[in-house]
Amino acid sequence: MTSGARLTGSVLVIGTGLLGTSLALALRRAGVEVLLEDANPEHVAIAVDRGAGVALSDADVPDVVVVACPPRLAAHVMAEASRRFPHATVTDVTSVKQPVLSDALAQGADPQRLVGGHPMAGREVSGPVGARADLFDDRLWIVTPGAADTDHVMQVHRLVTTCGGYAVEMDATDHDLAVALVSHAPQVISSALAAQLLEADEAHVRIAGQGLRDMTRIAASNVTMWSDILEVNGSPVADVLDHVATSLRETADALRERQGADISDALSAGVAGQLRIPGKHGAAAERYAEVTVQLADRSGELARMFVAAADAGINVEDVRIEHVLGRPSGLVSLFVLPGSDVALSAALLARDFDVRD
Amino acid sequence: MTSGARLTGSVLVIGTGLLGTSLALALRRAGVEVLLEDANPEHVAIAVDRGAGVALSDADVPDVVVVACPPRLAAHVMAEASRRFPHATVTDVTSVKQPVLSDALAQGADPQRLVGGHPMAGREVSGPVGARADLFDDRLWIVTPGAADTDHVMQVHRLVTTCGGYAVEMDATDHDLAVALVSHAPQVISSALAAQLLEADEAHVRIAGQGLRDMTRIAASNVTMWSDILEVNGSPVADVLDHVATSLRETADALRERQGADISDALSAGVAGQLRIPGKHGAAAERYAEVTVQLADRSGELARMFVAAADAGINVEDVRIEHVLGRPSGLVSLFVLPGSDVALSAALLARDFDVRD
Repeated sequence: MTSGARLTGSVLVIGTGLLGTSLALALRRAGVEVLLEDANPEHVAIAVDRGAGVALSDADVPDVVVVACPPRLAAHVMAEASRRFPHATVTDVTSVKQPVLSDALAQGADPQRLVGGHPMAGREVSGPVGARADLFDDRLWIVTPGAADTDHVMQVHRLVTTCGGYAVEMDATDHDLAVALVSHAPQVISSALAAQLLEADEAHVRIAGQGLRDMTRIAASNVTMWSDILEVNGSPVADVLDHVATSLRETADALRERQGADISDALSAGVAGQLRIPGKHGAAAERYAEVTVQLADRSGELARMFVAAADAGINVEDVRIEHVLGRPSGLVSLFVLPGSDVALSAALLARDFDVRD
Repeated sequence: MTSGARLTGSVLVIGTGLLGTSLALALRRAGVEVLLEDANPEHVAIAVDRGAGVALSDADVPDVVVVACPPRLAAHVMAEASRRFPHATVTDVTSVKQPVLSDALAQGADPQRLVGGHPMAGREVSGPVGARADLFDDRLWIVTPGAADTDHVMQVHRLVTTCGGYAVEMDATDHDLAVALVSHAPQVISSALAAQLLEADEAHVRIAGQGLRDMTRIAASNVTMWSDILEVNGSPVADVLDHVATSLRETADALRERQGADISDALSAGVAGQLRIPGKHGAAAERYAEVTVQLADRSGELARMFVAAADAGINVEDVRIEHVLGRPSGLVSLFVLPGSDVALSAALLARDFDVRD
């Protein structure tokens, strides 16, 4: 159902925070007429100032309304927008879909014009100042059509395409289960693990390696934003957390009772599960081939290595720099498409790089 | 207690797998006399062939014995080595210390000559073929002196230094608690999360982002090796897992009961805990400053970017390439020392890179 067609007509963006203003800038970049509204007039002024559109006036009749408010407010604002603009397509950018959309319908939103949206993009910053026209470029943007008419669903597809995104249709409930599994529960697990470090001995934390760093990276995320998201998607997230907690308890019991087979099984299930993730580091055999280089302790070595790869016509898909005691160790892993690894190794060896076998 | 002095005398390495052969190669690199022994004569032959030393003969009397066997065998082999060579310093490279060392003592190892060791280095591969002389360069190497004489502890410090490592003394029990927290329990948690993906819908897994990728990367590790390690360090690991499981259950309950304050508290504890890790991405404010660049979809852009940084005299400490649907999205984050970020942004802007604010 993805359409390459661009959006015509005017779009009202309600909520000129980071996502709303970025969306407005993306639409303006494509020449679309954008109207702006926010409970905070200062935010509208900043967005207007940044070229994101003009403030909504009473005479305006937008063709599409995008609600970019916090999850708690989105349903109410969508229902209201549906009443105020009885012909407009109404969509949102909330990261939880089913409860928000059914709440909007319960509050009187027109089901034929209500289409859920969730662009999978964001930044650590918030507010219109951090907004970017290219925030959604090449990003997944989940579209949940619900009971909406095809015309309105197509409008949202055009909106996504015009903003540079990549639309994927899903059922709203399905979406919420998916993000609970791949995003929301991992967020809580990362936080729970990181929280164990609070009371830990300084000497213990000091020997942390890359594994713990990777696992606790997202624990640094914005607490207010995440509390909001988690609360709205409470039940699906709680289910995943229960499953993981049960699995951890079972492994803890197996460890105390020295049930080696159970421990192996738990680890093997993890290996198999991890292989299902598209394009992750771990499944190098499936997606990427890895070439590891020990860089000399001279400035410019990283640049020299990437130049060697580029000169050999090889695209580096991903890179990982190992750290020891918080400092880079000089050990760098390059991930390339399978088949390119041999050529990359040869190109690096030809320039005297210390390639590890 | 770390000494810059190099090791003199001869070293017997028992167990010529990845770690043992790497250690032997590192010692040979420094000109130390190395003797080799392994239950598998083929492994000894490969190690000798790689220049890691010579096979032990009956007349040899090593000054230091390093036991590099799997955790299950280490204690027995150490006790035996202590008897066979009544004047030698006996140490090991096992990643669990207290149970292994007390077991070795129980089996008759001489407490005055027994010093625990744990080099924090490893590779995904195993066996002598994957061994590297530089495996321990700049790596932490935990030394647990126990009741050993200072002379023997100093010998192990010299061994570490000679291999290129960085010795840190810890109590054996303390070491096991530390690695349970920062390494062993995270391994199980990563596996438990990844295992949730096994039964998941293909469409759900497909929208996985960088967060899940990072959190499940180590789930791809070697099952046999990790089962062994976890079993030997069972009780401390089980305790950490229980704590995390309890925390996850509490958050699940808070989510079902919509206790927003409890959810916030759990996330806030994670933010604070994560800040304690030295040199991780998340604590950018503390350690590194981040500069984010949207690369154009042309080959060689990554190389051009690193050259721009190098030309400006700026060391890139870490790099992260964002992926969407398993493909690089062109969004690259560079981590530099605080203060260098402004100069890096300017240098990149001067070469027309699209630096995000």
